[in-house]
Amino acid sequence: MFQLRSIKHCRSCGAPAQYRVPADDNRERAVCSVCGTVHYENPLNVVGTVPIWDEQVLLCRRNIEPRYGKWTLPAGFLELGETTTEGAMRETDEEAGARIELLGLFTVLNVVRVGQLHLYYRARLLDTNFAPGPESIEARLFNEADIPWEELAFRTVRETLACYFSDRRRGQFEVHCADIS
Amino acid sequence: MFQLRSIKHCRSCGAPAQYRVPADDNRERAVCSVCGTVHYENPLNVVGTVPIWDEQVLLCRRNIEPRYGKWTLPAGFLELGETTTEGAMRETDEEAGARIELLGLFTVLNVVRVGQLHLYYRARLLDTNFAPGPESIEARLFNEADIPWEELAFRTVRETLACYFSDRRRGQFEVHCADIS
Repeated sequence: MFQLRSIKHCRSCGAPAQYRVPADDNRERAVCSVCGTVHYENPLNVVGTVPIWDEQVLLCRRNIEPRYGKWTLPAGFLELGETTTEGAMRETDEEAGARIELLGLFTVLNVVRVGQLHLYYRARLLDTNFAPGPESIEARLFNEADIPWEELAFRTVRETLACYFSDRRRGQFEVHCADIS
Repeated sequence: MFQLRSIKHCRSCGAPAQYRVPADDNRERAVCSVCGTVHYENPLNVVGTVPIWDEQVLLCRRNIEPRYGKWTLPAGFLELGETTTEGAMRETDEEAGARIELLGLFTVLNVVRVGQLHLYYRARLLDTNFAPGPESIEARLFNEADIPWEELAFRTVRETLACYFSDRRRGQFEVHCADIS
Protein backbone atom coordinates (compact mmCIF):
# COMPACT_ATOMS: atom_id res chain seq x y z
CA MET A 1 0.00 0.00 0.00
CA PHE A 2 1.30 3.47 -0.81
CA GLN A 3 2.28 5.69 2.06
CA LEU A 4 0.30 8.88 2.23
CA ARG A 5 2.12 12.05 3.22
CA SER A 6 5.46 10.26 3.20
CA ILE A 7 7.44 13.24 1.89
CA LYS A 8 8.98 15.02 4.87
CA HIS A 9 11.82 16.80 3.09
CA CYS A 10 12.45 18.49 -0.26
CA ARG A 11 14.27 16.36 -2.79
CA SER A 12 15.97 19.45 -4.22
CA CYS A 13 17.29 21.24 -1.15
CA GLY A 14 16.54 18.96 1.82
CA ALA A 15 14.48 21.55 3.73
CA PRO A 16 11.22 20.47 5.42
CA ALA A 17 8.23 20.02 3.09
CA GLN A 18 4.65 20.75 4.08
CA TYR A 19 1.46 19.35 2.60
CA ARG A 20 -0.71 22.17 1.22
CA VAL A 21 -2.59 23.07 -1.96
CA PRO A 22 -0.20 24.95 -4.30
CA ALA A 23 -1.44 27.96 -6.30
CA ASP A 24 -3.21 26.85 -9.52
CA ASP A 25 -3.76 23.38 -8.09
CA ASN A 26 -6.71 21.67 -6.43
CA ARG A 27 -5.17 19.07 -4.15
CA GLU A 28 -2.57 18.88 -1.43
CA ARG A 29 1.04 18.31 -2.43
CA ALA A 30 4.28 18.25 -0.50
CA VAL A 31 5.68 21.77 -1.02
CA CYS A 32 9.17 22.77 0.09
CA SER A 33 9.06 25.43 2.81
CA VAL A 34 12.27 27.01 1.52
CA CYS A 35 12.65 26.61 -2.28
CA GLY A 36 8.95 26.03 -3.08
CA THR A 37 9.48 22.85 -5.12
CA VAL A 38 6.22 20.92 -5.47
CA HIS A 39 6.56 17.13 -5.10
CA TYR A 40 3.92 15.11 -6.93
CA GLU A 41 2.99 11.55 -5.99
CA ASN A 42 1.27 9.42 -8.62
CA PRO A 43 0.18 5.83 -9.23
CA LEU A 44 2.78 3.29 -10.31
CA ASN A 45 2.53 0.82 -13.18
CA VAL A 46 3.03 -2.90 -12.70
CA VAL A 47 3.64 -4.84 -15.93
CA GLY A 48 3.54 -8.59 -16.41
CA THR A 49 2.72 -11.48 -18.70
CA VAL A 50 0.54 -14.58 -19.04
CA PRO A 51 3.18 -16.95 -20.50
CA ILE A 52 1.56 -19.89 -22.31
CA TRP A 53 3.01 -23.23 -23.40
CA ASP A 54 0.40 -25.28 -25.29
CA GLU A 55 -2.49 -25.51 -22.81
CA GLN A 56 -0.41 -24.53 -19.80
CA VAL A 57 0.36 -21.24 -18.08
CA LEU A 58 3.61 -20.40 -16.29
CA LEU A 59 3.38 -19.30 -12.66
CA CYS A 60 6.16 -18.31 -10.26
CA ARG A 61 6.24 -18.97 -6.53
CA ARG A 62 7.30 -15.83 -4.70
CA ASN A 63 10.57 -15.85 -2.78
CA ILE A 64 9.97 -12.33 -1.43
CA GLU A 65 7.44 -10.41 0.61
CA PRO A 66 4.68 -9.53 0.25
CA ARG A 67 2.99 -12.90 -0.31
CA TYR A 68 6.07 -15.05 0.20
CA GLY A 69 5.38 -18.59 -1.03
CA LYS A 70 2.28 -17.63 -3.03
CA TRP A 71 1.96 -18.11 -6.80
CA THR A 72 2.00 -15.23 -9.26
CA LEU A 73 2.29 -14.39 -12.91
CA PRO A 74 5.65 -12.76 -13.66
CA ALA A 75 5.20 -9.01 -13.07
CA GLY A 76 6.85 -5.99 -11.50
CA PHE A 77 7.19 -2.23 -11.52
CA LEU A 78 7.65 -0.48 -14.84
CA GLU A 79 10.98 1.38 -14.89
CA LEU A 80 11.96 4.68 -16.48
CA GLY A 81 13.51 4.16 -19.90
CA GLU A 82 11.42 1.17 -20.95
CA THR A 83 8.05 0.61 -22.62
CA THR A 84 5.31 -1.47 -20.99
CA THR A 85 6.11 -4.36 -23.34
CA GLU A 86 9.84 -4.13 -22.58
CA GLY A 87 9.05 -4.06 -18.86
CA ALA A 88 6.75 -7.07 -19.10
CA MET A 89 9.42 -9.05 -20.95
CA ARG A 90 12.13 -7.97 -18.48
CA GLU A 91 10.05 -9.11 -15.50
CA THR A 92 9.30 -12.43 -17.18
CA ASP A 93 13.02 -12.93 -17.66
CA GLU A 94 13.97 -11.78 -14.15
CA GLU A 95 11.34 -13.78 -12.27
CA ALA A 96 11.05 -16.91 -14.39
CA GLY A 97 14.12 -16.87 -16.65
CA ALA A 98 11.64 -17.48 -19.45
CA ARG A 99 11.95 -16.46 -23.09
CA ILE A 100 8.71 -15.31 -24.62
CA GLU A 101 7.05 -13.74 -27.62
CA LEU A 102 4.47 -11.13 -26.62
CA LEU A 103 1.00 -11.56 -28.14
CA GLY A 104 -0.81 -8.39 -27.07
CA LEU A 105 -2.17 -6.35 -24.18
CA PHE A 106 -4.67 -8.41 -22.19
CA THR A 107 -5.71 -6.82 -18.85
CA VAL A 108 -5.61 -3.23 -17.55
CA LEU A 109 -6.44 -3.31 -13.85
CA ASN A 110 -6.70 -0.36 -11.49
CA VAL A 111 -5.73 -1.10 -7.89
CA VAL A 112 -6.50 2.29 -6.38
CA ARG A 113 -6.07 1.07 -2.80
CA VAL A 114 -2.35 0.67 -3.39
CA GLY A 115 -1.94 3.38 -6.04
CA GLN A 116 -1.16 0.95 -8.88
CA LEU A 117 -2.18 0.20 -12.44
CA HIS A 118 -1.46 -3.38 -13.55
CA LEU A 119 -1.02 -4.21 -17.25
CA TYR A 120 -0.71 -7.85 -18.33
CA TYR A 121 0.24 -9.10 -21.79
CA ARG A 122 -0.49 -12.50 -23.29
CA ALA A 123 2.72 -14.27 -24.25
CA ARG A 124 3.91 -17.46 -25.93
CA LEU A 125 6.78 -19.32 -24.28
CA LEU A 126 9.56 -20.10 -26.74
CA ASP A 127 10.83 -23.07 -24.72
CA THR A 128 10.46 -24.62 -21.27
CA ASN A 129 13.98 -23.99 -19.99
CA PHE A 130 13.03 -21.76 -17.11
CA ALA A 131 15.63 -20.31 -14.78
CA PRO A 132 13.85 -18.56 -11.89
CA GLY A 133 15.68 -15.56 -10.49
CA PRO A 134 16.25 -14.75 -6.80
CA GLU A 135 12.70 -13.39 -6.43
CA SER A 136 11.15 -16.79 -7.23
CA ILE A 137 11.30 -20.12 -5.36
CA GLU A 138 10.24 -21.97 -8.50
CA ALA A 139 8.60 -21.49 -11.89
CA ARG A 140 6.14 -24.13 -13.10
CA LEU A 141 3.59 -24.81 -15.82
CA PHE A 142 -0.03 -25.37 -14.77
CA ASN A 143 -3.04 -26.74 -16.58
CA GLU A 144 -6.24 -24.81 -15.91
CA ALA A 145 -7.53 -27.59 -13.64
CA ASP A 146 -4.42 -27.38 -11.48
CA ILE A 147 -4.20 -23.60 -10.97
CA PRO A 148 -3.74 -22.98 -7.22
CA TRP A 149 -6.56 -20.43 -7.05
CA GLU A 150 -6.44 -20.23 -3.25
CA GLU A 151 -2.67 -19.77 -3.26
CA LEU A 152 -2.41 -16.90 -5.74
CA ALA A 153 -0.43 -13.88 -4.55
CA PHE A 154 -2.56 -11.03 -5.91
CA ARG A 155 -6.12 -10.34 -7.01
CA THR A 156 -4.87 -8.92 -10.32
CA VAL A 157 -3.27 -12.31 -11.02
CA ARG A 158 -6.53 -14.08 -10.22
CA GLU A 159 -8.51 -11.67 -12.43
CA THR A 160 -6.06 -11.98 -15.32
CA LEU A 161 -6.03 -15.80 -15.16
CA ALA A 162 -9.85 -15.94 -14.94
CA CYS A 163 -10.13 -13.66 -18.01
CA TYR A 164 -7.56 -15.75 -19.85
CA PHE A 165 -9.31 -19.10 -19.39
CA SER A 166 -12.72 -17.54 -20.08
CA ASP A 167 -11.53 -15.96 -23.33
CA ARG A 168 -9.78 -19.16 -24.37
CA ARG A 169 -12.97 -21.17 -23.90
CA ARG A 170 -14.91 -18.86 -26.22
CA GLY A 171 -12.00 -18.73 -28.66
CA GLN A 172 -11.45 -14.96 -28.67
CA PHE A 173 -9.10 -12.76 -26.68
CA GLU A 174 -9.97 -9.15 -25.84
CA VAL A 175 -8.46 -6.40 -23.72
CA HIS A 176 -10.13 -6.51 -20.30
CA CYS A 177 -10.34 -3.45 -18.04
CA ALA A 178 -11.40 -3.70 -14.41
CA ASP A 179 -11.03 -2.03 -11.04
CA ILE A 180 -9.79 -4.20 -8.17
CA SER A 181 -11.23 -2.88 -4.91
CA MET B 1 10.82 15.47 -20.18
CA PHE B 2 11.60 13.77 -16.89
CA GLN B 3 14.67 14.95 -15.04
CA LEU B 4 17.21 12.24 -14.52
CA ARG B 5 19.03 12.19 -11.21
CA SER B 6 16.85 14.98 -9.83
CA ILE B 7 16.76 13.61 -6.27
CA LYS B 8 19.44 15.42 -4.29
CA HIS B 9 18.05 14.86 -0.79
CA CYS B 10 16.21 12.15 1.13
CA ARG B 11 12.46 12.67 1.40
CA SER B 12 12.47 11.01 4.82
CA CYS B 13 15.30 12.75 6.64
CA GLY B 14 16.58 15.50 4.31
CA ALA B 15 20.17 14.19 4.21
CA PRO B 16 22.02 14.08 0.87
CA ALA B 17 21.07 11.20 -1.45
CA GLN B 18 23.50 9.48 -3.80
CA TYR B 19 22.76 7.51 -6.95
CA ARG B 20 24.03 3.95 -6.61
CA VAL B 21 22.79 0.39 -7.13
CA PRO B 22 21.21 -0.83 -3.87
CA ALA B 23 21.76 -4.40 -2.66
CA ASP B 24 19.35 -6.85 -4.37
CA ASP B 25 18.73 -4.37 -7.18
CA ASN B 26 20.12 -4.00 -10.69
CA ARG B 27 19.88 -0.28 -11.44
CA GLU B 28 20.91 3.00 -9.88
CA ARG B 29 18.53 4.62 -7.40
CA ALA B 30 18.81 7.67 -5.18
CA VAL B 31 19.82 6.22 -1.82
CA CYS B 32 19.98 8.30 1.36
CA SER B 33 23.53 8.57 2.68
CA VAL B 34 22.26 8.63 6.28
CA CYS B 35 19.05 6.61 6.72
CA GLY B 36 19.44 4.40 3.64
CA THR B 37 15.97 5.07 2.21
CA VAL B 38 15.80 4.09 -1.47
CA HIS B 39 13.91 6.54 -3.69
CA TYR B 40 12.35 5.00 -6.78
CA GLU B 41 11.47 7.00 -9.89
CA ASN B 42 8.94 5.52 -12.29
CA PRO B 43 6.91 6.45 -15.37
CA LEU B 44 3.77 8.54 -14.91
CA ASN B 45 0.35 7.88 -16.39
CA VAL B 46 -1.50 10.48 -18.45
CA VAL B 47 -5.21 9.76 -18.91
CA GLY B 48 -7.59 11.44 -21.34
CA THR B 49 -10.61 11.06 -23.59
CA VAL B 50 -11.76 11.32 -27.20
CA PRO B 51 -15.10 13.10 -26.58
CA ILE B 52 -17.50 12.64 -29.51
CA TRP B 53 -20.69 14.53 -30.45
CA ASP B 54 -22.28 13.02 -33.55
CA GLU B 55 -19.49 13.16 -36.14
CA GLN B 56 -17.42 15.70 -34.24
CA VAL B 57 -14.59 15.44 -31.70
CA LEU B 58 -13.95 17.90 -28.89
CA LEU B 59 -10.52 19.53 -28.72
CA CYS B 60 -9.15 22.05 -26.22
CA ARG B 61 -6.69 24.85 -26.97
CA ARG B 62 -3.97 24.91 -24.34
CA ASN B 63 -3.70 27.93 -22.07
CA ILE B 64 -0.55 26.58 -20.38
CA GLU B 65 2.95 25.47 -21.28
CA PRO B 66 4.16 23.28 -22.77
CA ARG B 67 2.50 23.79 -26.17
CA TYR B 68 0.63 26.96 -25.27
CA GLY B 69 -2.00 27.72 -27.94
CA LYS B 70 -1.90 24.22 -29.47
CA TRP B 71 -4.89 21.88 -29.64
CA THR B 72 -5.22 18.77 -27.51
CA LEU B 73 -7.63 16.11 -26.38
CA PRO B 74 -8.52 16.60 -22.71
CA ALA B 75 -5.88 14.71 -20.70
CA GLY B 76 -3.64 14.99 -17.67
CA PHE B 77 -1.72 13.12 -15.00
CA LEU B 78 -3.46 10.28 -13.16
CA GLU B 79 -3.69 11.07 -9.45
CA LEU B 80 -3.43 8.80 -6.43
CA GLY B 81 -6.87 7.73 -5.22
CA GLU B 82 -8.54 7.53 -8.63
CA THR B 83 -8.90 4.91 -11.35
CA THR B 84 -7.82 5.61 -14.93
CA THR B 85 -11.47 6.08 -15.95
CA GLU B 86 -12.09 8.47 -13.06
CA GLY B 87 -8.96 10.40 -13.98
CA ALA B 88 -9.95 10.61 -17.65
CA MET B 89 -13.40 11.94 -16.71
CA ARG B 90 -11.91 14.44 -14.22
CA GLU B 91 -9.50 15.82 -16.83
CA THR B 92 -12.33 16.14 -19.37
CA ASP B 93 -14.30 18.10 -16.81
CA GLU B 94 -11.34 20.26 -15.71
CA GLU B 95 -10.05 21.12 -19.17
CA ALA B 96 -13.27 21.31 -21.20
CA GLY B 97 -16.06 21.49 -18.62
CA ALA B 98 -17.63 18.67 -20.60
CA ARG B 99 -19.93 15.95 -19.34
CA ILE B 100 -19.33 12.57 -20.90
CA GLU B 101 -20.15 8.89 -20.84
CA LEU B 102 -17.05 6.71 -21.22
CA LEU B 103 -17.18 4.09 -23.98
CA GLY B 104 -14.01 2.09 -23.43
CA LEU B 105 -10.22 2.11 -23.45
CA PHE B 106 -8.93 3.14 -26.86
CA THR B 107 -5.17 3.86 -26.97
CA VAL B 108 -2.26 2.81 -24.72
CA LEU B 109 0.81 4.79 -25.78
CA ASN B 110 4.29 4.58 -24.33
CA VAL B 111 6.27 7.82 -24.44
CA VAL B 112 9.53 6.54 -23.00
CA ARG B 113 11.43 9.72 -23.83
CA VAL B 114 9.43 11.61 -21.20
CA GLY B 115 8.75 8.67 -18.88
CA GLN B 116 5.01 8.56 -19.54
CA LEU B 117 2.26 6.12 -20.45
CA HIS B 118 -0.80 7.73 -22.08
CA LEU B 119 -4.20 6.04 -21.90
CA TYR B 120 -7.12 7.48 -23.90
CA TYR B 121 -10.77 6.44 -23.63
CA ARG B 122 -13.49 6.92 -26.21
CA ALA B 123 -16.34 9.01 -24.80
CA ARG B 124 -19.77 10.29 -25.79
CA LEU B 125 -20.55 13.91 -24.97
CA LEU B 126 -23.85 14.26 -23.10
CA ASP B 127 -24.38 17.85 -24.26
CA THR B 128 -22.46 20.70 -25.90
CA ASN B 129 -22.42 23.09 -22.95
CA PHE B 130 -18.65 23.23 -22.54
CA ALA B 131 -17.05 25.37 -19.86
CA PRO B 132 -13.27 25.32 -20.38
CA GLY B 133 -11.23 25.61 -17.20
CA PRO B 134 -8.20 27.85 -16.64
CA GLU B 135 -5.90 25.41 -18.49
CA SER B 136 -7.80 25.89 -21.78
CA ILE B 137 -8.24 28.97 -24.00
CA GLU B 138 -11.26 27.38 -25.67
CA ALA B 139 -12.98 24.04 -26.26
CA ARG B 140 -14.46 23.34 -29.69
CA LEU B 141 -15.98 20.57 -31.79
CA PHE B 142 -14.19 19.59 -35.00
CA ASN B 143 -15.24 17.53 -37.99
CA GLU B 144 -12.52 15.18 -39.24
CA ALA B 145 -11.85 17.45 -42.24
CA ASP B 146 -11.21 20.42 -39.95
CA ILE B 147 -8.85 18.80 -37.42
CA PRO B 148 -5.83 21.15 -37.06
CA TRP B 149 -3.29 18.34 -37.58
CA GLU B 150 -0.35 20.74 -37.74
CA GLU B 151 -1.45 22.54 -34.57
CA LEU B 152 -1.86 19.53 -32.29
CA ALA B 153 -0.03 19.73 -28.96
CA PHE B 154 1.26 16.17 -28.60
CA ARG B 155 2.07 13.16 -30.76
CA THR B 156 -0.12 10.95 -28.56
CA VAL B 157 -3.08 13.20 -29.46
CA ARG B 158 -2.27 12.88 -33.16
CA GLU B 159 -1.91 9.10 -32.89
CA THR B 160 -5.16 8.75 -30.93
CA LEU B 161 -7.14 10.91 -33.38
CA ALA B 162 -5.67 9.06 -36.38
CA CYS B 163 -6.66 5.71 -34.82
CA TYR B 164 -10.12 7.05 -34.02
CA PHE B 165 -10.96 8.19 -37.56
CA SER B 166 -9.41 5.07 -39.06
CA ASP B 167 -11.44 2.76 -36.81
CA ARG B 168 -14.60 4.77 -37.44
CA ARG B 169 -14.19 4.40 -41.18
CA ARG B 170 -13.99 0.62 -40.95
CA GLY B 171 -16.83 0.56 -38.40
CA GLN B 172 -14.99 -1.17 -35.57
CA PHE B 173 -13.11 0.19 -32.57
CA GLU B 174 -10.22 -1.68 -31.00
CA VAL B 175 -7.64 -0.98 -28.30
CA HIS B 176 -4.50 0.37 -29.96
CA CYS B 177 -1.05 0.06 -28.40
CA ALA B 178 1.95 1.94 -29.73
CA ASP B 179 5.28 3.41 -28.73
CA ILE B 180 5.84 7.08 -29.48
CA SER B 181 9.54 7.72 -30.04
